[in-house]
Amino acid sequence: MNIIITGAAGFLGQRLAAALLQNNVLPFERLILADINTPRPPLEDARVRCVALDLSQPQAAETLIDADCGVLFHLAAIVSSHAESDFDLGMQVNFDATRQLLEVARHKAPAMKFIFTSSLAVFGGELPALIDDGCAVTPQSSYGTQKAMCELLINDYARKGFVDGRVLRLPTISVRPGKPNKAASSFASGIIREPLHGEAAVCPVSPELTLWLSSPGRVVQNFIHAATLPASAFGVSRTVNLPGISVSVRQMLAALREVAGEQVSSLVRFEPDEAINRIVASWPGNFDVRRALAMGFGADEDFQQAIRAFLRDEQAQGEG
Amino acid sequence: MNIIITGAAGFLGQRLAAALLQNNVLPFERLILADINTPRPPLEDARVRCVALDLSQPQAAETLIDADCGVLFHLAAIVSSHAESDFDLGMQVNFDATRQLLEVARHKAPAMKFIFTSSLAVFGGELPALIDDGCAVTPQSSYGTQKAMCELLINDYARKGFVDGRVLRLPTISVRPGKPNKAASSFASGIIREPLHGEAAVCPVSPELTLWLSSPGRVVQNFIHAATLPASAFGVSRTVNLPGISVSVRQMLAALREVAGEQVSSLVRFEPDEAINRIVASWPGNFDVRRALAMGFGADEDFQQAIRAFLRDEQAQGEG
Repeated sequence: MNIIITGAAGFLGQRLAAALLQNNVLPFERLILADINTPRPPLEDARVRCVALDLSQPQAAETLIDADCGVLFHLAAIVSSHAESDFDLGMQVNFDATRQLLEVARHKAPAMKFIFTSSLAVFGGELPALIDDGCAVTPQSSYGTQKAMCELLINDYARKGFVDGRVLRLPTISVRPGKPNKAASSFASGIIREPLHGEAAVCPVSPELTLWLSSPGRVVQNFIHAATLPASAFGVSRTVNLPGISVSVRQMLAALREVAGEQVSSLVRFEPDEAINRIVASWPGNFDVRRALAMGFGADEDFQQAIRAFLRDEQAQGEG
Repeated sequence: MNIIITGAAGFLGQRLAAALLQNNVLPFERLILADINTPRPPLEDARVRCVALDLSQPQAAETLIDADCGVLFHLAAIVSSHAESDFDLGMQVNFDATRQLLEVARHKAPAMKFIFTSSLAVFGGELPALIDDGCAVTPQSSYGTQKAMCELLINDYARKGFVDGRVLRLPTISVRPGKPNKAASSFASGIIREPLHGEAAVCPVSPELTLWLSSPGRVVQNFIHAATLPASAFGVSRTVNLPGISVSVRQMLAALREVAGEQVSSLVRFEPDEAINRIVASWPGNFDVRRALAMGFGADEDFQQAIRAFLRDEQAQGEG
């Protein structure tokens, strides 16, 4: 059995690949890491194959998937602000490429577990204070729209037995390592990461804005868990709102102060950015995730933990 | 200003065309009737152009839409049971062709009112007793999935100003004239129409099943109303659950008895069909449509009225 990760050069792809190689929760023969530029293997391991593949090209899915593929983690995407500024590219990569992967899986490997990373960005507009599984998706971004369309398609492919699809709606991930990116939520890591590195950071949204967050380590555990569950665990819908923690920006900075001190947390200044705020403020800040918890998905204990996990990861990487 | 109707050979398309020609609610220069086979004009009128057009062909939308098009009523679709048995054709016509029309409208006529007929079939699975605008869509058919994907896309096109999209989720239409079709809901007209013609009819679902119904006349009024509303009337979502009446199959037959007598209503016998029941029983039977009513959309008074309207239409046609 082989496992494929798309978007494997990205930071979650690298974390997921490392976790799959290190623990043996999901046994496999080959781990195929695909991205638009050849990804690096996170560890030296004879089971890894790295391939450069532009998923927006017509034959890409056909090249990637064969009958030996047991699990596909489809992480590749054009992120939110980028998909908003380039609608056509977003459609091509976030929607068309996903559809192409589904079609090839349907014909070559219908038993494949197709794990799709959706997002809380499918929600927007007038929302209840607490989102549950019965809540309508009314995305206020093209990114959210494209993800929501894929969710529908994957559920139909699963219902028809074309592919064993599973959809995970990710919370905003914080604290991400590395550089800011074109995601509208990039600040949610930047306002923690940059100060911890002694650098100033700009917060484009109000301190009162509440976010639904997950640490990268926790979300990677949830990815792998999604691939180990039987299809029957999902019931009538293959879409799951992943657990997270509901934290305001003010609480995030208080957690930063608690973990790293006043001097660090004071490196953040507020400079409202309407374009970012319009997208991020349309996302929900709290979910009823009893179904996901009952299925065995997990959340961080609190945001302090997420900051400490980030510091531990950085230290481990510095030593590695 | 020109108006286009796709699926114009269909019975709703013909009714809509006749209404547009007869009343002057929506003034226009040309009325373009398009269908896979050249539609007949419902009335002799110099403003009508009839075109044969296979929307699944790559250049079809480009041929159909020009800058003079002010309103497009996009009614063409592969119906529910047909889209369930031929998934690929359903995707091609119900989704890809709609996307193609949206793309051409975006580049040639972005101010165009793009009226899309969706369906209550976007709902399914575990539903509350009363559906409102905040209710998640979890379609249990490929038809419902394809319609729901179009809804998302049209809302995003509208949000971005690419096209002035409006989505109407139609109730099940009863009483339809003509022959049974491949819609899973075909029986909802058949169990009334055939007995009124002195013919036996088979009901494939339980008498307890509750349907959400609209007469064809009422739904055509709602189509035209959707094209006269300002965009601002829609608020945060361009999708509207159209008003209908909530009636059980038993109540439908009681209404038939009341209008046409015991001898007529006794021509219906029950013969459960699991394939049809699985689709139709997943659709909701009752909606909270206060928003639609406040926007000026309307419903029939009761099902007796819908039967009498059908009889009046048949008589008028017989005389015409």
